[in-house]
Amino acid sequence: MRYSQTFPKTIKQVPAGADSINHQLLVRGGYMDQLMAGSWTLLPLGWRVVSKINDIIREELNVTGALEMLMPLLHPRDIWDQTGRWSDPDVKEIMYQFKDIRGKELGLSFTHEEIVMNLLGKYIHSYKDLPVKIYHFSTKFRNEPRAKSGILRGREFLMKDLYSAHVSKEDLQQYFQQVKEAYLRIFKKMELEARVVDASGGIFTDSFTQEFQVVSPVGEDNILICESCDFAANIEVSQVKEGEKCPRCKGEIKMVNSIEAGHIFTLGTKYAKNMGVFFLDEQNKKQDLWFGSYGIGVSRLVGVLVEIFHDDKGIIWPESVAPYIIHLVGLGLEEQGVKNKAEEVYQKLQDKGVEVLYDDRIGVSAGEKFADADLIGIPLRVVVSRKTHSASSGQAEDKLEIKRRGEEKVELVTLEELLKEIEK
Amino acid sequence: MRYSQTFPKTIKQVPAGADSINHQLLVRGGYMDQLMAGSWTLLPLGWRVVSKINDIIREELNVTGALEMLMPLLHPRDIWDQTGRWSDPDVKEIMYQFKDIRGKELGLSFTHEEIVMNLLGKYIHSYKDLPVKIYHFSTKFRNEPRAKSGILRGREFLMKDLYSAHVSKEDLQQYFQQVKEAYLRIFKKMELEARVVDASGGIFTDSFTQEFQVVSPVGEDNILICESCDFAANIEVSQVKEGEKCPRCKGEIKMVNSIEAGHIFTLGTKYAKNMGVFFLDEQNKKQDLWFGSYGIGVSRLVGVLVEIFHDDKGIIWPESVAPYIIHLVGLGLEEQGVKNKAEEVYQKLQDKGVEVLYDDRIGVSAGEKFADADLIGIPLRVVVSRKTHSASSGQAEDKLEIKRRGEEKVELVTLEELLKEIEK
Repeated sequence: MRYSQTFPKTIKQVPAGADSINHQLLVRGGYMDQLMAGSWTLLPLGWRVVSKINDIIREELNVTGALEMLMPLLHPRDIWDQTGRWSDPDVKEIMYQFKDIRGKELGLSFTHEEIVMNLLGKYIHSYKDLPVKIYHFSTKFRNEPRAKSGILRGREFLMKDLYSAHVSKEDLQQYFQQVKEAYLRIFKKMELEARVVDASGGIFTDSFTQEFQVVSPVGEDNILICESCDFAANIEVSQVKEGEKCPRCKGEIKMVNSIEAGHIFTLGTKYAKNMGVFFLDEQNKKQDLWFGSYGIGVSRLVGVLVEIFHDDKGIIWPESVAPYIIHLVGLGLEEQGVKNKAEEVYQKLQDKGVEVLYDDRIGVSAGEKFADADLIGIPLRVVVSRKTHSASSGQAEDKLEIKRRGEEKVELVTLEELLKEIEK
Repeated sequence: MRYSQTFPKTIKQVPAGADSINHQLLVRGGYMDQLMAGSWTLLPLGWRVVSKINDIIREELNVTGALEMLMPLLHPRDIWDQTGRWSDPDVKEIMYQFKDIRGKELGLSFTHEEIVMNLLGKYIHSYKDLPVKIYHFSTKFRNEPRAKSGILRGREFLMKDLYSAHVSKEDLQQYFQQVKEAYLRIFKKMELEARVVDASGGIFTDSFTQEFQVVSPVGEDNILICESCDFAANIEVSQVKEGEKCPRCKGEIKMVNSIEAGHIFTLGTKYAKNMGVFFLDEQNKKQDLWFGSYGIGVSRLVGVLVEIFHDDKGIIWPESVAPYIIHLVGLGLEEQGVKNKAEEVYQKLQDKGVEVLYDDRIGVSAGEKFADADLIGIPLRVVVSRKTHSASSGQAEDKLEIKRRGEEKVELVTLEELLKEIEK
C-alpha cells in the first residue's frame, strides 16, 4: 500500500476529549474516527488490525469444531419476552428498544442467547443433532451510561460471540474447557497476558462464568493477582485479600486494574426451559438443552493492544495483529536513482507476499516520515535513501536500513538478507 | 467438513409462506433461517456463500484502488439533518428512526452517504488528499412495507457500499466507469449476466445513475432488453418501447422481469454543498467535493444466484460461490473397508486444500444422501461405495464415481485423476 494513497493520513494534534492512550494514538495514527460518543468508524488501517484479530479467533474456534454464521441485529420483542429479559430493568438500561412506524417492538442486539435458542428450537430434535457450536462476528449495541476510554467502552462495537448446546452438563463443561484453552491461545498469539478469573454472570446467568482480564492501569475492573504465579481472582468473589499470601504459591497478592477482554458463560438449562427447547434422548424422553456462550470484544481488543503496546512516540503492534509487517520509508525520492530503488524494493517485497506500507510521499521530511512510522507502529521500518543507495552514496552495493519498532538498533542489510529475515 | 457435524441438516418440507424458489431452496438446504419477516440468519452453509461473494467483490474493488473499512450502523440525527434526508417522507418510510432512553434521536443505516461525507469533512483539506475511495461490507436496515421473495427483499440485509470523492466531475466520471467495469467482472465471475441500465436515483440523487439488472421471472423490476445484443433500458427512462427495434442493432425489444443486483450513483456536489465539505484547489480556492456511491446487495445476490441456478431437485451453484467444491458421499459406511476408503479420500482432498463437504452419516440411505446433495447443490459429487471400492467389488483398483451437479453423466475415476481434474 502506498501511503500517498491511504485515507486518512496521521494527524498531529491530540483529539479533543481523548481521555485515554488508545483514543489518542488510534485517532492520531488514522486507525479510527469517532462518529459520536461510543461509536467509531474503523478506518482502513484499523480495519486491517480487526481483520487480523478476527482471523486469529476464527482459526482457533474452528479447531474446537465451531461453525461460523451470521445472525441478525434487529430482534423482535416476542423472542426476548420468552426469557423475561426484554423487561429486565438492567437490560432495559442498555438495550436499545423501540417501536417502528408500524408499531412493531424491536430491540438491537446487545447479545444473542435468545436468538440462538430460538434457532436451536427449530432444528434440534434428538440427541443425534447435538452438540451444536456456532459463532459469528457481529455488531453489538449497548447504551452505556458513560461511553469512554476510546474504543474500550463503546455503545456500538464488534464482538465475536460463540454459543454451544449440549446433551449434558458434562459435555457442556468439557466444551467450556476447550473454549477456555482456545481463548488462552488466541490471547497468547496477540502477545496479551490474559488472567482467567471466576466472575459474576450479571444479566446473563447465575451459573459459573469466567473472565479473561488483561492487566492495565486504565482498566475499569479490579482483580487480585499473585506476583509470583498466574493466580488471579475477581475481588467480588474472591476469598483472598490484597496483601495476603497466594493460596496457590504463597506469593504476594496485589490488587490491580484490568480490562475484560473475554467472558465465557455456562448458562445451564435455564434458557432452554424458559424457551421450551428440548431434545429427545436415547430413551425418547424429553430433555432440556445445556447451553453456554462465549464472547470476545474484538474492537475493544484493538484498544487493549494499544494500551499495552505503546511508547511516547506511538503504537508498537505485535506482529500477529499489525496492519502491515514492513513500513518502507523512502527518503529523498526527488532523486530518481533513490526513487527507482525504493520502488524496486516495494515491488519485490509485494511479490514475496509481504504486507508493506510504503511511504512514497514527495516533499515530506525524514523527521516527519519517521514520526509517522513510530506513531503507526508497524513492526519493521525499512529505509531507502541516498545513504543506502550505492550509486548515490558510493557504497559497493545497495543496502537497506532496518530498525524494529520499539528497539533502537539500526542495521544495514541487503534486500536478500531482509527477505531471509522475514521468512523466519 | 463432516456433514454429520454441520448445523442444521436439510429439511424435507417446504417452509410455510415460502413464496419464492430462493426462499424454499435456501431454507430447505440449510443455508438460511427466517428470524422475522425480511430478516434472515445466514447459517454456516449460507455464510460460506456470502464469504465467497464478498471475496470476489473485495478482489475487484481493490483493483480500483478502493480501501476497505467499517462504518457504524447507528447514526445521530444531526448528521442526517444536514442534507434534509432525515425528514424526507420517502426516507422516513424506510429508515428506522427512534429516540433512546436518554432522548437522543438515532437512525439505523439504510445507506451511508451522510456518514462518509461527515468523515471526509474531517480529513480532506486539499486537492492532494483526493481522490478517496472507501468501502465496507455491512448491514443495512430498510423498513420495507412488504418484505418478500425470500432473501431478495429484506428489512435487514448485507450490502457492499463503496463511496468515492474527487476533485472534478471528470475524475468522478472516470472512476464511475472503472467501478462499472469492476462490477461487470464481479457478476461475470459469479456467472451472472447483468444488464446495465440507466436509472432514476430515487431518494439518493437527481444525477446520473446506473443499475445492474439480472433477468429473472421473479424480479420486481421491468426492463427492456434487446434479444440480439446487450442493449437494455429501464422502462421509466427509456425512449424505446416493447416490440420496437433495438436502437443499437435493430434486434427486437422485449420487456422482461429483472432483479436489481447493483446500483451506482454519480451524486455530484450536492452532498458536499449541503454538508459544507470542500477542499482547497491548486490556487488555494475552496471547491466542493464531487461524490459517488456504489452498492451491491450481497445477501440479495445469494437469492439471485439461486433463482437463476437451480432445477427441480435443488440449487446448482456456480463454482466461484459454492460453499464447497466437492460433495463427498460415502455409501454403506457400515462396511469398514468402504469407510476407510471414504475417510482416506476425505483426508487427501483436504490435504490438497480442496473444500469438501463429506456426508459421513451412518444409517442414511443412498437415495436420501443423493437428494441432499442435489438440494445443497455443490458442483461436484464424488461417491465412495461398495461398488467403487476394489476389495469389496473385486475391481483391479479403487475408483470414485463422479458427477457434476446439473449434468447426468457419471464417470469412474481414480483419486489421482480427480485431483488432476480439480487443479484445472
